[in-house]
Amino acid sequence: MAHIQFAPFSSVVDPGFWHKLTEKKLNEYGLDDSERLIHGFFSDGNAPGMPPQLNLDYLAFNSQFNPPSQSFPAYGILHNTNTLESFKEKDKKLLLANAGEELWKDFQSGVFLQEPEKLCRFLLLTFADLKKYHFYYWFAFPALKFPERSTLTEEPAMLENIYSPEKLTSLISAYHSFQTDRPNYATCFLIQEDGDNFTFYEFAQLDVLISKRNVIVGVCDPSSLDSYPGWPVRNLISFLTYKYTGVVKSIKVLCVRNRTHDGVKHFGKSVLLTVDIPALNKNIADVPECVGWEKNERQKLGPRMVNLSNTMDPVRLAESAVDLNLKLMRWRLLPDLQLEKIASTKCLILGSGTLGCNVARLLMSWGIRHITMVDNSKVSFSNPVRQTLFTFEHCLEGGQPKAQAAASSLRTIFPGMKSEGKTLSIPMPGHAIIESLVEQTRAEVKELEELIQSHDAVFLLMDTRESRWLPTLICASKKKIVINAALGFDTFLVLRHGVKTGKADGSMPSSMLDKIAGSLLGCYFCNDVVAPGNSTTDRTLDQQCTVTRPGISMVASALAVELLISILQHPLRTDAPAEVNSYDSSLLAESDCSLGIVPHQIRGFLSRYQQILPATQAFHMCTACSAKVIENYEEHGFEFLLRAFNEPGYLEELTGLTAMQTATQDAEVWDLSDDEEPESMEATT
Amino acid sequence: MAHIQFAPFSSVVDPGFWHKLTEKKLNEYGLDDSERLIHGFFSDGNAPGMPPQLNLDYLAFNSQFNPPSQSFPAYGILHNTNTLESFKEKDKKLLLANAGEELWKDFQSGVFLQEPEKLCRFLLLTFADLKKYHFYYWFAFPALKFPERSTLTEEPAMLENIYSPEKLTSLISAYHSFQTDRPNYATCFLIQEDGDNFTFYEFAQLDVLISKRNVIVGVCDPSSLDSYPGWPVRNLISFLTYKYTGVVKSIKVLCVRNRTHDGVKHFGKSVLLTVDIPALNKNIADVPECVGWEKNERQKLGPRMVNLSNTMDPVRLAESAVDLNLKLMRWRLLPDLQLEKIASTKCLILGSGTLGCNVARLLMSWGIRHITMVDNSKVSFSNPVRQTLFTFEHCLEGGQPKAQAAASSLRTIFPGMKSEGKTLSIPMPGHAIIESLVEQTRAEVKELEELIQSHDAVFLLMDTRESRWLPTLICASKKKIVINAALGFDTFLVLRHGVKTGKADGSMPSSMLDKIAGSLLGCYFCNDVVAPGNSTTDRTLDQQCTVTRPGISMVASALAVELLISILQHPLRTDAPAEVNSYDSSLLAESDCSLGIVPHQIRGFLSRYQQILPATQAFHMCTACSAKVIENYEEHGFEFLLRAFNEPGYLEELTGLTAMQTATQDAEVWDLSDDEEPESMEATT
Repeated sequence: MAHIQFAPFSSVVDPGFWHKLTEKKLNEYGLDDSERLIHGFFSDGNAPGMPPQLNLDYLAFNSQFNPPSQSFPAYGILHNTNTLESFKEKDKKLLLANAGEELWKDFQSGVFLQEPEKLCRFLLLTFADLKKYHFYYWFAFPALKFPERSTLTEEPAMLENIYSPEKLTSLISAYHSFQTDRPNYATCFLIQEDGDNFTFYEFAQLDVLISKRNVIVGVCDPSSLDSYPGWPVRNLISFLTYKYTGVVKSIKVLCVRNRTHDGVKHFGKSVLLTVDIPALNKNIADVPECVGWEKNERQKLGPRMVNLSNTMDPVRLAESAVDLNLKLMRWRLLPDLQLEKIASTKCLILGSGTLGCNVARLLMSWGIRHITMVDNSKVSFSNPVRQTLFTFEHCLEGGQPKAQAAASSLRTIFPGMKSEGKTLSIPMPGHAIIESLVEQTRAEVKELEELIQSHDAVFLLMDTRESRWLPTLICASKKKIVINAALGFDTFLVLRHGVKTGKADGSMPSSMLDKIAGSLLGCYFCNDVVAPGNSTTDRTLDQQCTVTRPGISMVASALAVELLISILQHPLRTDAPAEVNSYDSSLLAESDCSLGIVPHQIRGFLSRYQQILPATQAFHMCTACSAKVIENYEEHGFEFLLRAFNEPGYLEELTGLTAMQTATQDAEVWDLSDDEEPESMEATT
Repeated sequence: MAHIQFAPFSSVVDPGFWHKLTEKKLNEYGLDDSERLIHGFFSDGNAPGMPPQLNLDYLAFNSQFNPPSQSFPAYGILHNTNTLESFKEKDKKLLLANAGEELWKDFQSGVFLQEPEKLCRFLLLTFADLKKYHFYYWFAFPALKFPERSTLTEEPAMLENIYSPEKLTSLISAYHSFQTDRPNYATCFLIQEDGDNFTFYEFAQLDVLISKRNVIVGVCDPSSLDSYPGWPVRNLISFLTYKYTGVVKSIKVLCVRNRTHDGVKHFGKSVLLTVDIPALNKNIADVPECVGWEKNERQKLGPRMVNLSNTMDPVRLAESAVDLNLKLMRWRLLPDLQLEKIASTKCLILGSGTLGCNVARLLMSWGIRHITMVDNSKVSFSNPVRQTLFTFEHCLEGGQPKAQAAASSLRTIFPGMKSEGKTLSIPMPGHAIIESLVEQTRAEVKELEELIQSHDAVFLLMDTRESRWLPTLICASKKKIVINAALGFDTFLVLRHGVKTGKADGSMPSSMLDKIAGSLLGCYFCNDVVAPGNSTTDRTLDQQCTVTRPGISMVASALAVELLISILQHPLRTDAPAEVNSYDSSLLAESDCSLGIVPHQIRGFLSRYQQILPATQAFHMCTACSAKVIENYEEHGFEFLLRAFNEPGYLEELTGLTAMQTATQDAEVWDLSDDEEPESMEATT
């Protein structure tokens, strides 16, 4: 009697599956490499010459899995490893033996009577190298050697050879009536033959019907080979053998092949097997050997690798690759890290020079996608070596507008950026507006107000002190996060402006080591007892340009961005308190923020490789953020601003600084060291 | 009697003049805006209709000025201002009045008898906006109103109307004999007319010859207008009037116009003037009014501007623009800064990741032009958002090799870069070399040795600890500057390796506050009591990639570069001592280096915005820089290295670490805080 040989599955994995795996790994699994249930499917309509295929696509991970129309499900377990080494070192024998044991247990439980489709199983061992988009994988289709070899009691018969065309048509018709109303086509069923007529029954009726002479067990078969049924038939025969050994001598099994023939689905090539059911000892503890690892393209037992970096949409590739780095931080180091809070923050960068370029780059690294750059000048030849978003090309033909060039470079680096550039001059106190320019200035102020309104965080990275005044005031009024950075030759200042949320007002620090509530912190102008005025007139070349040690800008930019991120991560956000006089940060208490402390100011001195972290309170006579100034701005709008631009002394008069200056001849109000003279902080960006 | 009217000069400035001015400003003048002597020239052969031109070109600044052949010099004073404001605000009346006074004094001194060409003078007021390559300028051609108006006693006569062709030929012939043997053509001379014959005399003979009836004063005249002599004639007539008022009644002046006529130079259009010499009071204190500011293109008295950014070679433009920023530092802030020492330093960057890209950018900002990047991998999609020399384009088609892509980006930013990229794997201890790869490894070692040999400073910016071992050893042997940087999640380490120059050996620090001589400082491995081994096997994705706060890389890169620059500027270079235990940098003494202190290590902690500056001595059992290791490497070369790569424990055995480990069960040798675990420093770059 002939042994039955089975045609094994060939796995066919759609790129959509790998994309989905990438997404799952990034967003859900992280470093958790435990088993996952997945699904594949196969068709019983394969054309001649086609190997029996097991397909996986992007739906494989759905917990409610519905195979495509006229396809049949396969039930898989995914073992996705974290490293190529653990992929290689995984004990494949053990893995398959465990799958065999599961199958054996399910034989006993009888689950297959209700869900015979679950006889079709697979294992998938993977390692996803998400940096290169190389996917290493190895399928197994577990099958028990039970019996050691199945045999036929009769020659296999192709239906078209033994059934008349009418009988075949009758079979097909009955099949369709049976399958059509089901949510998913059944993989296995029972067929009662009565002359040329057929009645289909659920597989669950097996026990009732098995002993009837005219009952055939039907199974949809992916094989297209005349003499070899496919893998699902193998497990079905094992199960039937297990169940009816000693009960029946043989069972008829119809391997249904629903092939298209002259444009119509047809059963003619289906094969009827009469399978011998030997009398066997089915000792439960005696798990039969399990086989089924797939051969690779070289016909060896071994894994395959697919390199999707060339076939995937590169923009999507870049997006998931960039996500990966950030998620890695959370997986391993900072489970609390709220990447969404960061990613959704819209940032406005005023000044697209050395600081602006570096800050934009770092915000992009942190996953921030919405960045608007503002500047009023063009890229000049001296810029690209220090301003990291510009190249030589940007300087040609008179130079491209800086803000637009920077915004477009961000997209060149990462196409997923939503970056925009605005060429805009920011009106400044002390730079009087002549009559003919009033309307233009009004429009500029309006545009700045709208820009600030539509962003969450504003970076002040301009190269003059007085250009920071208007955005400081507007941000104070609109309660936006402001990060301010300014450079000297080898010194820098990075600070966050206090945001007057109303929380903690009135509580005053009582000792050196006390904290200042975030809403009480000062702004850039709070330490000044003069209003901003025109500082650009008559500056020599070295004062107009960047005269800083090149490293200073990268340090200040990095700290400015990290300060914003710390604010966003702190449970109190801008209300996060800052330590007072924390010159020695080792005195600082542990922070509530997973990223560490959230200082008010960071002042750095490159000549001594030193940083200090002063914190100061908002000044009630501040020319930019005091209540009087904000009230006047909110009440009188542009008319108030125009007076501030045009009238020297107006802001001092308004805030009471003039009176104070008169009173304090020798103003020992501030306490800056030689390294911190306000002017030397301004030869930027 | 007719007044004489003079045709003023039109200035014609060759772009070469502005290039030269740019160069002078950058390399010589700096912010010194004092007066400079310059030169122009004019021709007496202008075609009809051409205005009299005063030309300036790149030779204008030569102290030994020779005008082009058959041209005549003009003597100028350049007032180059530092700002547009001072250009505008310069007191033009005063400037011209001063020039008149000079001229008047020279009338008295008689200098013009010897050097009559010095009667042709000009002032040039400029502002060079070297960021935009806009040059603002205004010429004045000072002329004294002395007499208030010159008049003629006879009608002016064109030579061709009064001389026969023979007589003209005779004149030309005599002129050429007179001029030909001189180093430069004389602007003024004396002509004695004797029938159809002429004899030429030096202008210095004026006093002797002036009273002779047949003597004519000759002057080469840039004007081509029949009735109007040019500006040089004006000052000559003033001078003659000053000198001979009351002495003679009139003087004949020949305005020589050496125009090309039928292909030959010809004097026919020269004009003979008989100038009235009025009797005037020449009170020395009574300086006559001086006139001469040039009109601009709108025929107004006002400055002109030329924008050369479009016409200059953009690559040259970029080069001088980049130079400018660096020179500004020296001009104003650091007169001691030795930019040449920096510019000539050849830098080798091992590792082209986040650190490598930022370091290369900053070296470029500092004026370093020769950079070689090394890496063994390709640009992947996650790189560009953090690795600042890459764009999305570099990731396509499997990714470009990182080192080459980075090197080419440097040239895209600044075409003056001499940057190269080398794809090279660095062999590592603990990563055994299989037999078939020995020759390849030998070649890699050789290439690395040659690269290190041909550079001055080496940056170790790789992402594993063990890949730093071989370059550390080779650099120690070749005594190269090494700057090492490594990142943790929110921590970083930047250090310079001690360079064993032999200086200060044997002197040991005696107290906490002592310094360690540069040649005694430790390397990256000196704090370790285990040799480097394979740390990459079986790392999960987060360990393989950059899992750092994005800001960390910019800070560490900036400090790494600034540390190199400080070493290069220090009078002792690598021998510059480092303070011991200088955790509080405020304790540090003033540095010998204009850029500040030169620490051994900078360790930074972003969660506390803190930096400390430890310094440690070289360890005599170090597996990378101890004498034993260097001797073995120098003696046995590759064979020694191969043992180190292949034999675990070999380096420990060789250096005596094994014995020490055995002796010290509980090795309390190091004293790192939790933040400084060696592994956490390694999830880079």
